[in-house]
Parts: sequence; C-alpha cells; structure tokens
Amino acid sequence: MGKLRVIGIGPGSIENMSLRALKAIEDSDIIVGYNKYIDMIKVLTLDKELYSTGMKGEEARCKEALSLCKDKNVALISTGDAGIYGMAGLILELRTNEEVEIIPGITASSAAGSVVGAPLMHDNCNISLSDLMTPYEDIKKRVKLAAEGDFVISLYNPKSKGRPYYLRECINIIKEFREDSTPVAVVRHALREGQNYKLFTIQNFDPEVVDMMSIVIVGNSKSYYKEEQFITPRGYENKS
Amino acid sequence: MGKLRVIGIGPGSIENMSLRALKAIEDSDIIVGYNKYIDMIKVLTLDKELYSTGMKGEEARCKEALSLCKDKNVALISTGDAGIYGMAGLILELRTNEEVEIIPGITASSAAGSVVGAPLMHDNCNISLSDLMTPYEDIKKRVKLAAEGDFVISLYNPKSKGRPYYLRECINIIKEFREDSTPVAVVRHALREGQNYKLFTIQNFDPEVVDMMSIVIVGNSKSYYKEEQFITPRGYENKS
Repeated sequence: MGKLRVIGIGPGSIENMSLRALKAIEDSDIIVGYNKYIDMIKVLTLDKELYSTGMKGEEARCKEALSLCKDKNVALISTGDAGIYGMAGLILELRTNEEVEIIPGITASSAAGSVVGAPLMHDNCNISLSDLMTPYEDIKKRVKLAAEGDFVISLYNPKSKGRPYYLRECINIIKEFREDSTPVAVVRHALREGQNYKLFTIQNFDPEVVDMMSIVIVGNSKSYYKEEQFITPRGYENKS
Repeated sequence: MGKLRVIGIGPGSIENMSLRALKAIEDSDIIVGYNKYIDMIKVLTLDKELYSTGMKGEEARCKEALSLCKDKNVALISTGDAGIYGMAGLILELRTNEEVEIIPGITASSAAGSVVGAPLMHDNCNISLSDLMTPYEDIKKRVKLAAEGDFVISLYNPKSKGRPYYLRECINIIKEFREDSTPVAVVRHALREGQNYKLFTIQNFDPEVVDMMSIVIVGNSKSYYKEEQFITPRGYENKS
C-alpha cells in the first residue's frame, strides 16, 4: 500500500520549496503533474517515474494519482500552495480509502508580494479571474465587495485568450473604491526563472503586460510606493 | 556593510521552512525576533548572536535590526509569511539605505488549511481581528463584505483577553450569509509542536476553544465535510 502526497512546491524554484516538500518528492516513486511544473523541479525527479499531463486534464490526473498510489508512493505536484487553487481539493473530493497527505507551499500572492515589497501586510484576499468553473458575474461581485471592504486584492489567473477584457473590467470596478495613486503590481514568474515585474498606479495600469503567468496585486486605501517598493501599512491608526 | 534579511519561517517547524529561509539564517550573524519564534528554530541559531524581544516591541525590534545590519548580516524572524501581518512592511517603512531582502514563507492560513483538508481551494481572504491598529468597526465591515462575497475567510489573531467577544460577533455576522452546516475549523499551533484542531459547523461553533495561537477558517457557501475533511470545491458550476 502506497501513499499519495499532494505537494505544493511553492513558486517553482527549488530554494523556495519547503524541506518537507523536498523530502516528500525524494520519498516518492512516481511524480504526477502538469509537465511545465515537473520541469521546474526536474533535478529532483531524474530517478523517478513520471506521469505528466497537459494543463487541462486535472480530473484525469487526480484519478491517475489515486490509482497509482495503491501500489507505490506518489507525489502529485502543484505550484504554489496545493491547497489554494491547487490539486488538494479535487484529490480529497475523489478519494475513497487512499492514504493522502497535503503538504502546503508558498502561494503565488506571497511570492509575488515579496518581489515588490510588502503589499499584503494588512487584510488581503485572493480572487481567481478564471471563469471555467465560476460564472463571471459572481467573480465581478466578489471583486466589488473586496474593493469596498478595502482588502489588498491579489488576482490569480488574471488573463487568458478566452477572456481578454475581464482584467480591465475588474480593475475598473476596484478603481471606483480607490484613489488614482493606488499601487498595482504585475509580477510574472515570481521567484522562478524568467521573473519580471512592473509597477503601476491604478490610474495608469496597463493590462497588456499581463498574462496567465502573472499575479496582479492591487493595494488598499493606505498602500503606497516608497522608492519603488509597494508597501501596505499594518493598520489604519498610525503610520510609522 | 551587512545585509538584513526579513525571513518568514512558515508555521514554526524546521521542515516547513523553505531552503532559502534556512540558508539565510545560516548566513546570518545575528538573529532578531520575538523570543518564542526564535525558540521554534533554536537548533539553527545555536552559534548565532541573538537579539530577542517580547511580543510588543515591534518597532524597536525593527529599528534594532536596521541598525545592526550596518555591520553584520542580520536575520529578522517572523512566523508564517513575513509579508502577511509580519515584519516586512515595518522594515520597509523604516528603512533608509540598508540592503533588505524579503524571504516569504508559508502563511498561517495555508498551514492551518492543510491540517484540516482543503478549505482554501476557492477565493479566500485573511482578516485579522486585532484592533490594535485597526478600528473594530472597520474590521466588522470587512467581515460582513467578505461573507457577502462568499469568500472562504481565515481569521488571524482571533481572540485576546482585551477583546473576548469579537470572534463570536464576527462569526454571527458571517452566519447571516451562510447555511447552518457551513464548516468552521479552529487550528491551534498548525504544523508545529502542540498542534491540535477542532471542527465545527457555524451553527455549533464554540469560541471557547480559540486562543491567539489559533487560526479560524470559515467555509464558503459550497464548503462541506467529507469524513472529517473540510473541503471547498474549486468552483460553482460542477462539483465532482
């Protein structure tokens, strides 16, 4: 009887993985995951059996992982935290009697935040703009309420070919509740190969630089830039 | 000239730290932090100079770290992610010309989530109930909007002696937007020594088990328990 470990590898560089995630991969016989994610940690997987799939087959990938772990130790790889828009939920939904361990990782908003300063220092939320499983009307409503609640907002899956205008529309919704000078950061490939970022205000934000490999972080009413660092103060009552 | 690294050590166990955080501590001459946090990673700090302080002196601690790094390499320790309710923001606010690196970690909601299942699989937010720097009226407003937006809600600093009733009041606010069966998990000392947790519904939730070492996670409208696992499905349109 094997074990299935659902592993958040963090942003996609070995140094930003946890020791626990690293050891879990070492202890596994088979690595299951989207091929681009497996590539990011290739050096750890050289002596392993690989079961890699394209982006879409998430349910098939989970079923395969659950089936394979009856005999062998299986590592199912997610980037970021396996428990935030990752594979942990679907595995637990599909699981019958397999032994499953969820190993968290650094989620993309934490990684992206660290690249541009300290934008997430106060209450913050993660919202995915993907409408594959959630109606766009629900997404827009949530964006509006988060803006009204003065959350720092991290947008995951901010753009894809099928929905090129959502990001602009959502930023415009947030803009109704923020001053023009509010910082907006776009971080691509945060803390992994190919990292780059661009800093905007909500007034001059340009969605053209954003793709699916990006996280977009919009500040709260107190966020500001100090020498190219995006800072959100810890509270409302005194600003150091 | 030394360097200041602001390090998120994750939940407070060495195996859940990133390799980068581990190496940064090894490379530092001086460790600065709240004494209970330094204790959690004691084995890494045996050959280091320590500058530990009580919980309250956050600004003094940051100023000391900035001053010390003029000559030596300094590690300023936060639990969780240094960029989420941690020390990263205050350091960047106070910094003048020191070299500063922010090293992210696994935040407490990710750690707590992994202990009880996969509660954070869809849009989610972190809200601190501490009113030290934020008026309680603002906190309540934010809780209400997050509940209305159907976010999974993670409550940080859920309770302290000075505000014993906030948690009950905030759960009651959320309850107006959720069914009685909505899962609520309380995770104490997630992924570190002394870990324990308790699962409730929002209907039978008991704030008595909660203390400052706890994270409270409240599900969205689709969250459910499956064999003692707290699961939030990935979306709204099809539930596997």
